Amino acid sequence: MYSKQKQTSAPSLAHSEDNPLSTLAKLLDGDMRAVNTLIIRNMHSDVALIPTLAQYLISAGGKRIRPLLTLAGTALFDGPMHKAYHLAAAVEFIHTATLLHDDVVDESGERRGRQTANLVFGNQASVLVGDFLFSKSFQMMIESGSIEILHILSDAAAIIAQGEVLQLTTTNNIQTDLKSYMKVIESKTAALFSASSEVGAVLSERNNEERSAMRLYGKNIGIAFQIIDDALDYTAEQEKFGKDIGNDFKEGKMTAPVIFALQKANAQETRFWKRTLGEKEQNENDFDQAMTYITKHKTIETTVDLAQRYIENAKAALNPLPNNTFKPIISNLADYILSRNF
Amino acid sequence: MYSKQKQTSAPSLAHSEDNPLSTLAKLLDGDMRAVNTLIIRNMHSDVALIPTLAQYLISAGGKRIRPLLTLAGTALFDGPMHKAYHLAAAVEFIHTATLLHDDVVDESGERRGRQTANLVFGNQASVLVGDFLFSKSFQMMIESGSIEILHILSDAAAIIAQGEVLQLTTTNNIQTDLKSYMKVIESKTAALFSASSEVGAVLSERNNEERSAMRLYGKNIGIAFQIIDDALDYTAEQEKFGKDIGNDFKEGKMTAPVIFALQKANAQETRFWKRTLGEKEQNENDFDQAMTYITKHKTIETTVDLAQRYIENAKAALNPLPNNTFKPIISNLADYILSRNF
Repeated sequence: MYSKQKQTSAPSLAHSEDNPLSTLAKLLDGDMRAVNTLIIRNMHSDVALIPTLAQYLISAGGKRIRPLLTLAGTALFDGPMHKAYHLAAAVEFIHTATLLHDDVVDESGERRGRQTANLVFGNQASVLVGDFLFSKSFQMMIESGSIEILHILSDAAAIIAQGEVLQLTTTNNIQTDLKSYMKVIESKTAALFSASSEVGAVLSERNNEERSAMRLYGKNIGIAFQIIDDALDYTAEQEKFGKDIGNDFKEGKMTAPVIFALQKANAQETRFWKRTLGEKEQNENDFDQAMTYITKHKTIETTVDLAQRYIENAKAALNPLPNNTFKPIISNLADYILSRNF
Repeated sequence: MYSKQKQTSAPSLAHSEDNPLSTLAKLLDGDMRAVNTLIIRNMHSDVALIPTLAQYLISAGGKRIRPLLTLAGTALFDGPMHKAYHLAAAVEFIHTATLLHDDVVDESGERRGRQTANLVFGNQASVLVGDFLFSKSFQMMIESGSIEILHILSDAAAIIAQGEVLQLTTTNNIQTDLKSYMKVIESKTAALFSASSEVGAVLSERNNEERSAMRLYGKNIGIAFQIIDDALDYTAEQEKFGKDIGNDFKEGKMTAPVIFALQKANAQETRFWKRTLGEKEQNENDFDQAMTYITKHKTIETTVDLAQRYIENAKAALNPLPNNTFKPIISNLADYILSRNF
């Protein structure tokens, strides 16, 4: 478990800049083990399909960034780590449930480098096991015994669902502007990053300024995380990224790279986006054509610049927080989001 | 709102035996209005598709039996009615979310006498709006401020999801026996009836014997409710029942009428069930043929007898409870479940 002794004995890790996510995972190794134990225990069910399917997704990896934020947020304030375990597991379950339902909704084929659960086990099982994980997340967060924390996390869950529905209504709508896009990602992604970060401060009984700082930090890295995710959908190497490239294009999702391309599009390009995204009429070469326009208008660069702004906000939000081992790592984590290939 | 004054002024209603559900709804009219207001307020979202879809399902009716149980359970113990409103709305939201996901999973076409939401709005919207209602249900139950009640309701939600997955794994499996069937319906249906009934006693700070009595009452009427529902899928008039008849047969769901028919099947009949349910190879006349076997072996009667036993259990469970206006109505409600055409 994380303790002050370990904190001082691992300064080299704390200042390792190349991968603050691994640094955090190492510093909080004992705590993350406790969280993993809870995750595995709460995936259990006499209905064998449930652990089989949940295990399939959870064992495929993912960096557990949300539970790490909950643990790091608690450690930053020297708060009660053991109380954070259930909450860290709960946020991972909310995230996993969302992934399961997302993949059904998106009809995705690949996630974390393997076939999506809905392809392997069917949409029906994915919907229902998602529901199971979602209700287990509530069971776990109730263990915290704090009505305030329950409000934070259940509010986040409701906001996520709204963001997902909003995304559904903006998909294939080429009128979607940056403002709508930002609302979607603030809801579907940043809300859980924000809640995951904030609960550590609440558990540690910190004042409103500090809670608000952690909430803002989480929100801003969450926004940046999703913006980069959306850029990667156009640029990443499939092997590294572990999911289909060009999925957003195929589905007609209105994300930053195409919203910026539409802003700069000439009449011919607008017709192209209208046909491919708005009307979902796509030919084999259309993704390459889309990449040509995206490259021409440098919209990946504009997208990364946008993410950069939120990273700066995230780091600035940390100012009022106590200086200890965790603060620089959490700050570095924000920068790492930008360079993410995870 | 329900008050003692009204309780004594409406004895004729209280003894009306023909429809205890309407009697309850009338006695608790003011309370149900408060619950409906909460339901409508919590369906709201800036994302217009959410209230549109939720409204579509909720306005289609349904008898609100679960919130009525929560209110009646509270009134029976003379408990704090205003505290029960959020919980009553929460159980209705859990139920509605489950219906939305069920219809996606079952690929149903009709519910409550109209097209299912997934047909009108798409599976994607149904999954996500279900998630929204589910998270709103948690937000509402947190309003109760009672960790004990949160445990009861979140446990129920997890059990429901497990029951749904278990049902998925027994579908098209003609080896499914009565024991497995009972486990499915105890989980997917009875758990929420049980929780809805119990929370009234907990809110009213009653002792364990009384809580347990309400829990058992709810569980047993829930089991009977589902058994009758499954019988109706083979016998009801479509117009009255408001959903497709023969759906369970089409999907290969292993419910009491066919489990009993399989127990008595000769070799030819077994081949029939194996082909139609196990292998989902169905011809136009197969439902009529199924009805012939079901009629031959009187399995609807056996199914209703089974439900009857749980109704008797439910009524017996009420024995230790205080005698007041609500007790005979709640008892009559159990009998009414048997005669349900709602």
